[in-house]
Amino acid sequence: MSASKLDAIFKPKSVAVVGASTKPGTAGNDILLNLVRDKYIGNVYPVNPKADEIHGVKVYPTLTDIPGEVDLAVLVVNAKFVPGVVEESKTKGVKGLVIISAGFKESGHEGAEREKELTKQVQAAGIPLIGPNCLGVINPSINLNASFAAKIALNGHLGFISQSGALCTSVLDYAEAREIGFSKFVSFGNKADVKEADLLEYLADDPDTKVIALYLEDIGDAKRFIEVASKTFWEKGKPILCLKSGRSAEGAKAVSSHTGSLAGSDAEYEAVLKQAGVQRVTTIAELFDLAALYTTQPLPKGNRLAIITNAGGPGIMATDAAIAAGLTLAKLDQSTKDKLKPPVLPEAAALNNPVDVIGDAHSDRYKAAVEAVMADPNVDLGVIVLTPQSMTDSDNCGKILPEVIKKIGKPVVGAFMGVKQVEEGVKNLVDQGVPNYAFPEDAVKSLAAAVRLVASKSISKREYAEYKDIDVAKANKIIADYLGSEKEKYLTQAECRALFECYKLPLLKSGVAKSADEAAKVVSGIGSKVVMKVMSSDVKHKFDAGGVLLNIEGADGAKKGYEQIYANIAQNVPGAKIDSILIEQMADKGVEVIVGCSRGGLGPLMMFGLGGTLVELLKDVAFRLAPMWKVTAEEMVREIKAFKVLDGYRGTPKSDINAAVDTILRMSALAVNHPEVAEFDINPLIVHPEGKGASVADSRVMLRKV
Amino acid sequence: MSASKLDAIFKPKSVAVVGASTKPGTAGNDILLNLVRDKYIGNVYPVNPKADEIHGVKVYPTLTDIPGEVDLAVLVVNAKFVPGVVEESKTKGVKGLVIISAGFKESGHEGAEREKELTKQVQAAGIPLIGPNCLGVINPSINLNASFAAKIALNGHLGFISQSGALCTSVLDYAEAREIGFSKFVSFGNKADVKEADLLEYLADDPDTKVIALYLEDIGDAKRFIEVASKTFWEKGKPILCLKSGRSAEGAKAVSSHTGSLAGSDAEYEAVLKQAGVQRVTTIAELFDLAALYTTQPLPKGNRLAIITNAGGPGIMATDAAIAAGLTLAKLDQSTKDKLKPPVLPEAAALNNPVDVIGDAHSDRYKAAVEAVMADPNVDLGVIVLTPQSMTDSDNCGKILPEVIKKIGKPVVGAFMGVKQVEEGVKNLVDQGVPNYAFPEDAVKSLAAAVRLVASKSISKREYAEYKDIDVAKANKIIADYLGSEKEKYLTQAECRALFECYKLPLLKSGVAKSADEAAKVVSGIGSKVVMKVMSSDVKHKFDAGGVLLNIEGADGAKKGYEQIYANIAQNVPGAKIDSILIEQMADKGVEVIVGCSRGGLGPLMMFGLGGTLVELLKDVAFRLAPMWKVTAEEMVREIKAFKVLDGYRGTPKSDINAAVDTILRMSALAVNHPEVAEFDINPLIVHPEGKGASVADSRVMLRKV
Repeated sequence: MSASKLDAIFKPKSVAVVGASTKPGTAGNDILLNLVRDKYIGNVYPVNPKADEIHGVKVYPTLTDIPGEVDLAVLVVNAKFVPGVVEESKTKGVKGLVIISAGFKESGHEGAEREKELTKQVQAAGIPLIGPNCLGVINPSINLNASFAAKIALNGHLGFISQSGALCTSVLDYAEAREIGFSKFVSFGNKADVKEADLLEYLADDPDTKVIALYLEDIGDAKRFIEVASKTFWEKGKPILCLKSGRSAEGAKAVSSHTGSLAGSDAEYEAVLKQAGVQRVTTIAELFDLAALYTTQPLPKGNRLAIITNAGGPGIMATDAAIAAGLTLAKLDQSTKDKLKPPVLPEAAALNNPVDVIGDAHSDRYKAAVEAVMADPNVDLGVIVLTPQSMTDSDNCGKILPEVIKKIGKPVVGAFMGVKQVEEGVKNLVDQGVPNYAFPEDAVKSLAAAVRLVASKSISKREYAEYKDIDVAKANKIIADYLGSEKEKYLTQAECRALFECYKLPLLKSGVAKSADEAAKVVSGIGSKVVMKVMSSDVKHKFDAGGVLLNIEGADGAKKGYEQIYANIAQNVPGAKIDSILIEQMADKGVEVIVGCSRGGLGPLMMFGLGGTLVELLKDVAFRLAPMWKVTAEEMVREIKAFKVLDGYRGTPKSDINAAVDTILRMSALAVNHPEVAEFDINPLIVHPEGKGASVADSRVMLRKV
Repeated sequence: MSASKLDAIFKPKSVAVVGASTKPGTAGNDILLNLVRDKYIGNVYPVNPKADEIHGVKVYPTLTDIPGEVDLAVLVVNAKFVPGVVEESKTKGVKGLVIISAGFKESGHEGAEREKELTKQVQAAGIPLIGPNCLGVINPSINLNASFAAKIALNGHLGFISQSGALCTSVLDYAEAREIGFSKFVSFGNKADVKEADLLEYLADDPDTKVIALYLEDIGDAKRFIEVASKTFWEKGKPILCLKSGRSAEGAKAVSSHTGSLAGSDAEYEAVLKQAGVQRVTTIAELFDLAALYTTQPLPKGNRLAIITNAGGPGIMATDAAIAAGLTLAKLDQSTKDKLKPPVLPEAAALNNPVDVIGDAHSDRYKAAVEAVMADPNVDLGVIVLTPQSMTDSDNCGKILPEVIKKIGKPVVGAFMGVKQVEEGVKNLVDQGVPNYAFPEDAVKSLAAAVRLVASKSISKREYAEYKDIDVAKANKIIADYLGSEKEKYLTQAECRALFECYKLPLLKSGVAKSADEAAKVVSGIGSKVVMKVMSSDVKHKFDAGGVLLNIEGADGAKKGYEQIYANIAQNVPGAKIDSILIEQMADKGVEVIVGCSRGGLGPLMMFGLGGTLVELLKDVAFRLAPMWKVTAEEMVREIKAFKVLDGYRGTPKSDINAAVDTILRMSALAVNHPEVAEFDINPLIVHPEGKGASVADSRVMLRKV
């Protein structure tokens, strides 16, 4: 969909409300009221065959009776009349549709069929549609409240997209209380036509939008979402926040029964959001905390926080929260401390960070402290903690500090603590573009989130690995052969090897010998220590019978080993028939990891973690969707808590991380190229010390007919 | 300190303000103003040699000039005059002191000395003292605002104790906004005399106090704190909440420089709070969220949550938060769902939990749903989610639901979402004793905290283990001998063994043999498989020379082994002189754990965790202070995330948890009985399958002169 097509919905010159109602308290009445009361700057045309005038506006019996052009038609009619109105819209030349009406996918089978037809109809007509089953859209910059929300949004720079209509009124209410303004506010309901990715694409190019916030219950096309979102953030520089509900299995079930869509697992969504560069939040409060910061303050250059406070206790609380959130306390330059010496701050003031301006501080002391501390080159972020004590002029602090902060060019926020006692001061701060947090912990957590956002921004090289040595055709043939006419099949070790060879995975070498000379050849070919195993159906306990030899090396060793096994078997299992001797390369030492894949609703989900039951128990694994960029595979490896084990810990050598990354990428390619590969595990992949590669020690692949 | 002595401070019949000032904006003026304006019901006597009347109250030149009795004297004089006023207080027969004045421990060395003298002075006089360097105390039930806080607290049932004065005004402001009332409100500053434990003890017996909230920066006497707090909670049933700041190393440093006290590590405080049955919170917001719940609602009987909502999205968000917080979604009885069928709820309503009463629900639908759902025997807790949609009568919901909720006898809270749109509804809820949370996540998290609180309440058997088989005297002698004149010393393996034998720890058996017969005797004595090792300074590589034999069993095996080693050495290291053969019991299989101890500021800190570097890396360990109850040691074992490994995981047998607990308790006794034991580790302790005990496989002990 061409993004500019959505202009008809978000920047219409005229709006028709089809199903405008005379009955107060109905959506058809409220929408018209909103357009009129909020003074939408374009033409408004109510449509209702049974009314003459509603809210003082002339009513037309049908869309086609309207004299002027209609950019946007908002439909509030019964679901069964929708197809007719859409047909009429086509005739009238309507350029965009918002369908408020319920009775579609959310209402069961019949509604779902009705929705499919609707989608076909609008897409054939080439008219973009938002909804059905939504609250509507708001664009405060042109006073457009084409929704039945009880109030219009404040004008501002947050683009908000919500899959839940019911949430919207609460959101507008919270946002107003915090003075957060919106560029566009969209409830997009069942998303029969316009999807989250379309809206993201539109907002990415919208000059009024600086930050985007999403409330999502599912994502339709994960691949496209990743593409669009990652460009929005990494190329256009607009942060995207997302509250994705249905995190728990129980929540996902509720999503399904609520939206009628099949939700993927949370591990999938978590992976998608990470790959898309979207910052996930888990509560509405957090969404606003971050939106308030990102829409007003510059992004930080580092993680060194300065705390300026008039009270010791809250300064400590801010410190605790900062460390817990991954920030560090900035170490102030001596020259900064010199600037703050008496008479600027009193003798009792603490000049080390947290800087304590002491309980009787007036705004002048705060101003001096903020100026000096934030100018310190060792400081990246600042929080101003203020408790209303008997001498505190919080009103004035709120009045004068924003100007100081604006000049600094670093993110600084307030933590004026209290409600009524700091009301005026907080208003002064926020009016001038400095966010305030009622509790220092929230202030600090938000700053820390900004630091994480910036860190993820450094992932700018979004390149796919191109493997020219992969033989897809051969793999396809192997898969077709092995699967045959079966529905599902687990591959044998030999079959796994054959498949993995097409993808040039680091398999351990092996061979079979039927003579001492052959053994010598195989071992020389392998070129490192091997295990020799007798292959004989007559020998039950290979080890006990002396049929397994470890650590065999070289041609001579191979020959001796071969003969030794024959001799051992002859002695211990007289008369046993020996088929051959299996020779397998012994894996060098290394760290055991797992590379796995399963398929959920959104695509092949790759998994990476350390081997062993303990890791499994502690769920210390990383997920990403295939295909993935090279940096994404690197992220997977670095994301697990046990990464230190790979990175060299307590004297163990650093592992060959590149080899692990390479294996993840090759296995991603395997998953993407062959939909029949339903799931697999390489467990363990042994990752050797740096430069020594990795070895597939064991694996499991399941094929499934598609 | 006798708790009733504090009545003079919290329930005085008369209050003198020494240092009452004529100058507005000073603490000496504000305190008098607060007593007068808030209409304290007793007599008020300002003391100031240079004034006649302040705020309409007659002023006396000195304390002794006051005609009536003085229960409480509040001192706001310069620190250097404090000793004189205390002396005068003694003469006058004052029964309690609150010293607001700063200039004591918090101000450096001189102040610290002054504070020591003050403590001696008041304790000799037998007058309890709160402060110095505090904001004062408030008892709303008698309109006593003996503080310079800008407002008095609302009357209610929360007892609040704060080590930070500056925090208090903010706290009062927040509390007022949420309509949280206080029984007592105490800023206790430097706690020169009255400590947190004294205040806890007082509030435990205070009939007006139902719940206690603490803001602490350090704890002086951890042992006493544990004793008093655990009684308050487990015996008197009053929940205690604590915001302990200085969680991070940086925060702890700030505490030290702020309060002048030496803070312990956070692991110690975490341990102390757990042992004391105190519920720790990390933010002020959380403190109020829980206080609002605990002061108004009954404690839950289980963790099965019902969600009643008028919007799908927020219902899902509540579900996600519930599962993340450890609650389960209640499965409703069919009979409950039958009660809700049309016409009670409309056809489109969701009758499974979350119960969706649909966007157009009025209060009657909410009432019917709450009544039916909360009466369901499968439901322990409830949250009522409400988004203000066009038809929603949130005012009325707030009006009628509390009565329904009160009859249920289960905790139910509101999550009326929004600010202005739900203002009246929320007020109606809260006025009638139902807490409301602006976001469903906070509502659910608070309910989950209540469930955890109740679960910890089941730890009612607080008994110490009594070990009659421990030989303290012998251990003392051993320690004295080993330490000798050294300051610090690591014990050898043999020395560790000797010490641990006094505490009957499960040591692996061992012995030395100089003949085959002796070897047979030793091995028979050990009674299980052993390792035999040659002891000879001539044999460098014991293994290669055949000097180590594994898995030796029985007298015959021992004899053969003994001879085999002699033969091997004779062959492989001709002429080598053999000293003896060391025989060590081979440890049975089991799970490797660590039991350790170090000494911080609060006492011997015991540590428990699984063995291995991965656990260390993931910091999956539990800490508690010694001495500890038996249940506390059990808690330690069960608290680690990897507990499942001990409890039998994926086919591995259940381990002998009792043996691990016993080892922790014996080692706790060792730490308590011998202050010279500076630190130790048993690493690993091998915990065998259930009923098979545990084995100390390796250990390390450091002694330090005390």
